[in-house]
Amino acid sequence: MVDVITLGETMLRLSPVTVSTLEEAQQFQVDVAGAESNVAGGLARMGLSVGWVSKLVDNSIGRLMAKRIQWHGVDISRIVWADRGRNGLYYLEPGVEPRPTRLIYDRADSAFTSLCFEEIDWEYFKDARLVHLSGITPALGKSADQLTHQIIDHFNNTGTLISFDVNYRSKLWSPSVAGKILTPIVKKVDVLICSLNDAATVFGFRSMDAEEVARGLQQAYHNQMVVLTMADKGAMAFDGQNIWYQDAYHAGSVDRIGRGDSFSAGFLYGYLNDDATAGLEYGNAMAALNQTLKGDFFWCGKEEGEQLIAGHSKKLDR
Amino acid sequence: MVDVITLGETMLRLSPVTVSTLEEAQQFQVDVAGAESNVAGGLARMGLSVGWVSKLVDNSIGRLMAKRIQWHGVDISRIVWADRGRNGLYYLEPGVEPRPTRLIYDRADSAFTSLCFEEIDWEYFKDARLVHLSGITPALGKSADQLTHQIIDHFNNTGTLISFDVNYRSKLWSPSVAGKILTPIVKKVDVLICSLNDAATVFGFRSMDAEEVARGLQQAYHNQMVVLTMADKGAMAFDGQNIWYQDAYHAGSVDRIGRGDSFSAGFLYGYLNDDATAGLEYGNAMAALNQTLKGDFFWCGKEEGEQLIAGHSKKLDR
Amino acid sequence: MVDVITLGETMLRLSPVTVSTLEEAQQFQVDVAGAESNVAGGLARMGLSVGWVSKLVDNSIGRLMAKRIQWHGVDISRIVWADRGRNGLYYLEPGVEPRPTRLIYDRADSAFTSLCFEEIDWEYFKDARLVHLSGITPALGKSADQLTHQIIDHFNNTGTLISFDVNYRSKLWSPSVAGKILTPIVKKVDVLICSLNDAATVFGFRSMDAEEVARGLQQAYHNQMVVLTMADKGAMAFDGQNIWYQDAYHAGSVDRIGRGDSFSAGFLYGYLNDDATAGLEYGNAMAALNQTLKGDFFWCGKEEGEQLIAGHSKKLDR
Amino acid sequence: MVDVITLGETMLRLSPVTVSTLEEAQQFQVDVAGAESNVAGGLARMGLSVGWVSKLVDNSIGRLMAKRIQWHGVDISRIVWADRGRNGLYYLEPGVEPRPTRLIYDRADSAFTSLCFEEIDWEYFKDARLVHLSGITPALGKSADQLTHQIIDHFNNTGTLISFDVNYRSKLWSPSVAGKILTPIVKKVDVLICSLNDAATVFGFRSMDAEEVARGLQQAYHNQMVVLTMADKGAMAFDGQNIWYQDAYHAGSVDRIGRGDSFSAGFLYGYLNDDATAGLEYGNAMAALNQTLKGDFFWCGKEEGEQLIAGHSKKLDR
Amino acid sequence: MVDVITLGETMLRLSPVTVSTLEEAQQFQVDVAGAESNVAGGLARMGLSVGWVSKLVDNSIGRLMAKRIQWHGVDISRIVWADRGRNGLYYLEPGVEPRPTRLIYDRADSAFTSLCFEEIDWEYFKDARLVHLSGITPALGKSADQLTHQIIDHFNNTGTLISFDVNYRSKLWSPSVAGKILTPIVKKVDVLICSLNDAATVFGFRSMDAEEVARGLQQAYHNQMVVLTMADKGAMAFDGQNIWYQDAYHAGSVDRIGRGDSFSAGFLYGYLNDDATAGLEYGNAMAALNQTLKGDFFWCGKEEGEQLIAGHSKKLDR
Amino acid sequence: MVDVITLGETMLRLSPVTVSTLEEAQQFQVDVAGAESNVAGGLARMGLSVGWVSKLVDNSIGRLMAKRIQWHGVDISRIVWADRGRNGLYYLEPGVEPRPTRLIYDRADSAFTSLCFEEIDWEYFKDARLVHLSGITPALGKSADQLTHQIIDHFNNTGTLISFDVNYRSKLWSPSVAGKILTPIVKKVDVLICSLNDAATVFGFRSMDAEEVARGLQQAYHNQMVVLTMADKGAMAFDGQNIWYQDAYHAGSVDRIGRGDSFSAGFLYGYLNDDATAGLEYGNAMAALNQTLKGDFFWCGKEEGEQLIAGHSKKLDR
Repeated sequence: MVDVITLGETMLRLSPVTVSTLEEAQQFQVDVAGAESNVAGGLARMGLSVGWVSKLVDNSIGRLMAKRIQWHGVDISRIVWADRGRNGLYYLEPGVEPRPTRLIYDRADSAFTSLCFEEIDWEYFKDARLVHLSGITPALGKSADQLTHQIIDHFNNTGTLISFDVNYRSKLWSPSVAGKILTPIVKKVDVLICSLNDAATVFGFRSMDAEEVARGLQQAYHNQMVVLTMADKGAMAFDGQNIWYQDAYHAGSVDRIGRGDSFSAGFLYGYLNDDATAGLEYGNAMAALNQTLKGDFFWCGKEEGEQLIAGHSKKLDR
Repeated sequence: MVDVITLGETMLRLSPVTVSTLEEAQQFQVDVAGAESNVAGGLARMGLSVGWVSKLVDNSIGRLMAKRIQWHGVDISRIVWADRGRNGLYYLEPGVEPRPTRLIYDRADSAFTSLCFEEIDWEYFKDARLVHLSGITPALGKSADQLTHQIIDHFNNTGTLISFDVNYRSKLWSPSVAGKILTPIVKKVDVLICSLNDAATVFGFRSMDAEEVARGLQQAYHNQMVVLTMADKGAMAFDGQNIWYQDAYHAGSVDRIGRGDSFSAGFLYGYLNDDATAGLEYGNAMAALNQTLKGDFFWCGKEEGEQLIAGHSKKLDR
Repeated sequence: MVDVITLGETMLRLSPVTVSTLEEAQQFQVDVAGAESNVAGGLARMGLSVGWVSKLVDNSIGRLMAKRIQWHGVDISRIVWADRGRNGLYYLEPGVEPRPTRLIYDRADSAFTSLCFEEIDWEYFKDARLVHLSGITPALGKSADQLTHQIIDHFNNTGTLISFDVNYRSKLWSPSVAGKILTPIVKKVDVLICSLNDAATVFGFRSMDAEEVARGLQQAYHNQMVVLTMADKGAMAFDGQNIWYQDAYHAGSVDRIGRGDSFSAGFLYGYLNDDATAGLEYGNAMAALNQTLKGDFFWCGKEEGEQLIAGHSKKLDR
Repeated sequence: MVDVITLGETMLRLSPVTVSTLEEAQQFQVDVAGAESNVAGGLARMGLSVGWVSKLVDNSIGRLMAKRIQWHGVDISRIVWADRGRNGLYYLEPGVEPRPTRLIYDRADSAFTSLCFEEIDWEYFKDARLVHLSGITPALGKSADQLTHQIIDHFNNTGTLISFDVNYRSKLWSPSVAGKILTPIVKKVDVLICSLNDAATVFGFRSMDAEEVARGLQQAYHNQMVVLTMADKGAMAFDGQNIWYQDAYHAGSVDRIGRGDSFSAGFLYGYLNDDATAGLEYGNAMAALNQTLKGDFFWCGKEEGEQLIAGHSKKLDR
Repeated sequence: MVDVITLGETMLRLSPVTVSTLEEAQQFQVDVAGAESNVAGGLARMGLSVGWVSKLVDNSIGRLMAKRIQWHGVDISRIVWADRGRNGLYYLEPGVEPRPTRLIYDRADSAFTSLCFEEIDWEYFKDARLVHLSGITPALGKSADQLTHQIIDHFNNTGTLISFDVNYRSKLWSPSVAGKILTPIVKKVDVLICSLNDAATVFGFRSMDAEEVARGLQQAYHNQMVVLTMADKGAMAFDGQNIWYQDAYHAGSVDRIGRGDSFSAGFLYGYLNDDATAGLEYGNAMAALNQTLKGDFFWCGKEEGEQLIAGHSKKLDR
Repeated sequence: MVDVITLGETMLRLSPVTVSTLEEAQQFQVDVAGAESNVAGGLARMGLSVGWVSKLVDNSIGRLMAKRIQWHGVDISRIVWADRGRNGLYYLEPGVEPRPTRLIYDRADSAFTSLCFEEIDWEYFKDARLVHLSGITPALGKSADQLTHQIIDHFNNTGTLISFDVNYRSKLWSPSVAGKILTPIVKKVDVLICSLNDAATVFGFRSMDAEEVARGLQQAYHNQMVVLTMADKGAMAFDGQNIWYQDAYHAGSVDRIGRGDSFSAGFLYGYLNDDATAGLEYGNAMAALNQTLKGDFFWCGKEEGEQLIAGHSKKLDR
């Protein structure tokens, strides 16, 4: 019933309403954020039919989270609902240079960490063209790591593409543990999305030359496509033979969190519908637009992305 | 160094900023609330020297919580700080009749549940005139129940008064378990504070006649003083011989949560400085003032309480 | 694909964020409101599958409106989207006695007024058990009146129930015009919902005795069921033979607008699933809960409604 | 050029934006308030041409104050502007029963206290039908007391009516000083407006019988008209021969401050255009509407006042 | 009675209160904006006596709009008030590069479009030194175009200067229609204000050399003065013989909308009182200050403009 | 009992909540600000034991001010409380280039100006390692100037270090008066902190060469250490022999007010614990962090300061 599945944990994101530290916060802005639901939202806004799978507690907070994801047009009908337990959350203190943006996770023992392969309605998803996962899930514990392998194995050799964004989080695990756990996973995925930083930190591919890193990853893990992101600089794709590169768009910065997920959504949209060139174009456009608004989600539409790619954006449209 | 110690868990209290359900909340008001820290704040505002003991994680959220309690003049120097773990929280959806006020607790595995008797600086507190505890602590698990007993045993027969507010919470445990766990505790405390509802639900003293309930409790547990609260109606005290009663003040209702803790603070203030009559007067006055403002805390001052007792309040003072 | 269809215009509802007149407003709260989409939202929250049909301009404001309705679980896939034109709106100044609540409509020439019978995907709706319409639609002009007749005629004798809420609006038309236009409509509907006021103003059934009015309407228009609402007092149903009555619940008042639509949703839910008794129970419960929150919509859930009916509501649930 | 002149001090009114004490306020609502400018605003909204005279410092705060008064249609062209000094202000903590509403004045040495008779453009005001003053001005010091006498003497026997609202403020002076200073003033005014409380506190007319008090005042000070206000109960007028009385309207209470000034504006409007009966009607209507909105000013219009008097108000006008 | 008249439509301007798209807006900031009323406000703040003429519906929204313009000191006594109809509005979504700032107009059939020459009190305005109009008015329909011609013809050869700002709006009409309609108008005005963009788009004067464009316009339309604006770069004036040029001030950007109108106000102020040099200085200063605050209006004062021109601005004045 | 004393006036700081001029402000953000209490807060956040001495009126506003300072961990137990009088305040209009940031002081006759040497509990402070004062105090009048001398004389030759920040305020006095009053003071202090601007304006040390200025000051006033601040450029220290210099950190600017006080706190912290090098490092780090948040205070912690100095700051820590 859906073109794309994404699966992962989503948390309540609580950040001061005004410019303030968490310690002095009087009110929290209530957002909802998770790498894979961010990607789901971005793809749904581009017009694809996308289902997000996760496990939430069936209370007001869980429903708030699900509905905030549905807002973008994502199919939330296959969320697994738990009777008891807790929904994860994190506190966000946005920084201004040189004060860093800081996160305090409070996600231990969330309902998601108890999600089992068998609880999911795989029949509903059997015609999906793409399954998107990220390295955050295996970081959440043994059971979530096992789930990741089960899903990949389930879809392998079925014609469904498997994409995987490394998304290393230093507050969840160390680079060496991450490397050990993630290596067997990335070997099995079709599209590997990885930042230049994570390639070095987690997989040990350290080089000033991005192309060398992209080639290194592809040769090590034999992915159909390796996509390497370089923060504000741009992104690169390598399929073992051809290399593509595109500069990032210059963009004002309101809230950078979620930028990477919008890039992934854009890349996957362009790649699914067309090719790696389109993927990089949409990825860069959606990443740029993402950081001009608050919250992790991609709040814009397909039209704005395509106007940016086509170079038709005006400063003021009246 | 302090006159009074209160010990218990304190949580972040997150409620919609506007009149809204939790499910539709866009922003949360950030408050800090815990029965025993509420009592500490109320007593400090009356001019006593009060220390609050608890365990918090040493991060921005933990510091926010401690400072919000210090705001009232409470000594927070003996909080036990944890390096890791989580601070408890709850979501609050204020109701309007007939829609109930609802709480969603997210307090499992908080730092407080790992607090040990040995971690606390008892030397610092050796001259306290009063230790105040509540029935919420033993509801939080075996270790917290044990801690409650250790503290009571530590102060018993030292001249330090022990007060205990039953505070039954149906979302934490069943009436029968609560009754079993709390009975050995209430037998050891000097001042037992209990609502008419809890006397029936937890201890089985069911009667339309409040005096009969107060006598029943005192005869069963032999407390120096039993204080029975009757919501908006008023409160009663019984010491085995004499009975005191005072009507509640008529008061507008902005936020009723914390009203009971302000009553306890008022009763203990009046009782420590004077007698049960003063206790009921201050208890009712502080309860009434408490519900005219948002948040669990007692935000007013000694002067306002005493003007109310003296009948000198004006509607408009200009 | 859906159990229930509702069709009608929905507007942006702009009201001062703070207690203020419109003339002094600095910020407007942005809500979305329309009698028939309110009913759709209420029915979806009770667990029915509901589609809302209307016509909106395909711009940010139109999408905002559609998504706000989808938030409640309503199927918005059959909205007719216009390329150009305008979405209707109204300004709301909430009153406090004796200052009246006032509305300024700015809905002339909205996209909805150009909606044609042929633009709607009737195939998709062919299995609906109920179609709900209101007297606001024919008030919007000749073409909307014709549409109302076309829909009723389309479903008549198909087993699909047709319900109709009179909803007289004095700012849209005079009582005499309303009476002339609405009479041929109400003769064709199965469930007629009408307030005691509108029965007098529009149809001339003036009496202090509600039962007499209900009987008068039923005898005049031969509806399967006449439902008469009496503001805060309660509601009555009459099927030509039996008469049912239920008192309203006592309820605090935060925002009364939308109360009637929640009643209709509740009545239709109870009546569809059960009978007129259930209809009045759910109608009164949903009306009472509706006015405890801001906005036209019913923001609560099935569980809260049923707890209220069962008499299990607590003031504070913790 | 104007029908009415009012003269007096106006202050910045700073109150917590949320329900909070001043001590915990994070943000202040910025209002502008002064008894005589409140009356000016009310009269201008009723359609009279009104000039307000005062002295303000020519900085952003002074201009804010003047423009907020002009907003109501008041002529501010004859404000006297000071190059240096300060504009007065007060902090307001709105109460909820039994917590009193409290004011902290910070108005000492404001620019107004240096206003001289000679600084005012009396030529411009020479055709005024009414001059309105209040007992707050003489409370502000010797020079302001002298100014009050100068103005009254200037207009006496010119055909211009002089009205005076006693407005006793216990935070400015004691009852005995007020009585001594105000007695020679009230003897010279045409329309004396006084609350039942002030009649007792300041002038010693203590009685449960309002009529007796009104007669007492009139016989003592020989005013053309004595108007006695009785808070929520209503108001009475006595001209030495005839007595008029009207009950107050039942009204919800959002912010009672300014209610008395709206009564005065209403009375003066009705009295100037018609007679004491009309005065009491407009006074009560404007007082009732005033307290349904925040701020001291009368924010409604003539139409709303007259609908209330005519008994045509609806709860909901749509 | 006034020095300057400006005439044109003004709309409610509704934009998200927080950084958000319109589609996700929860609250709208309520501003009032129209090119000609912006110019009126700017000129009034510089100390000129300015009247703004327009047609508004006499309801709360219309009065809000008029009072917001009066706030700046503009004479609103000659607004034409309509009994029925609608006031225009637009929704504004402020952009952050590369996301464009977008407007959605909802101004069709506003009261302004029915304004007739005969409805205006020309007697009151007979001594005006300047009439300012803009190209937005003729874009609003045949009748508004005719009104533009009638006004220009009325003042031609009376000694009253006529200034005209082209203000091309692509959402109102196409360049070719605009060119056809505007050409006969610009031939009759004294001061023609036009952006480099509009000169190319509407009148076909395309050149990289601004001077060439200015000369081209002047030779084509024979205006007393052609003023060419070049966005952030600066502005140029040409009177057929002499050419003046001044760089724009470097300025932070909070809200650029209204910048052009503040430039026009500044130019006209300097030009009326002095000459083209002063005009460019005031124009650039007011444009720079305008974009440091939200809303279309010029919120600063004459003093701030002149300090900027004189180079006396400090970063921090304490 | 404390390591450091700071003494000076603190005011309420009222600034528009949104981007707006003061003239149009609807709500004021309530902050508390004073150069010496800012320094106290910064030092307390670095872990020192700091007492702040001042005089406040004992009302809600005075208590608000004291508690806001205590929030940072400052000992407020030795504030002198006045029964009557007023607390000073200032209005702040934050600028955006080229619109200046402007302050309107309303601090005349504040309680602080009546503070006497004898009212202060010097016994409590006898073991302080450092007393910090500023040039604002002597600017407030003869009595405050005398107090400054009394304090310096009291601590001279006791081993307590005396630091003094010149802090020239042009709205309080002229450069020549400031120079005359401050010269005898700066001659007696150990650590003189002065901006390059103030060195020129107040003391006449005008040079493009900062080192020359530092040497000039030291030779004139013979301070143990002269610290010269150069706004965004960095800071220099000179002890008569050695010269130290450190560049400022690049930092985003949210609110620059208080930046200088955070520098002073940092310098004094580093210098007290270590040496001038550490002083400049901490000073620059705290100044940079200060301007990334709103309000005068230093809201960050020791850890953030030291991570910045160590170069370990990340943009995003997750």
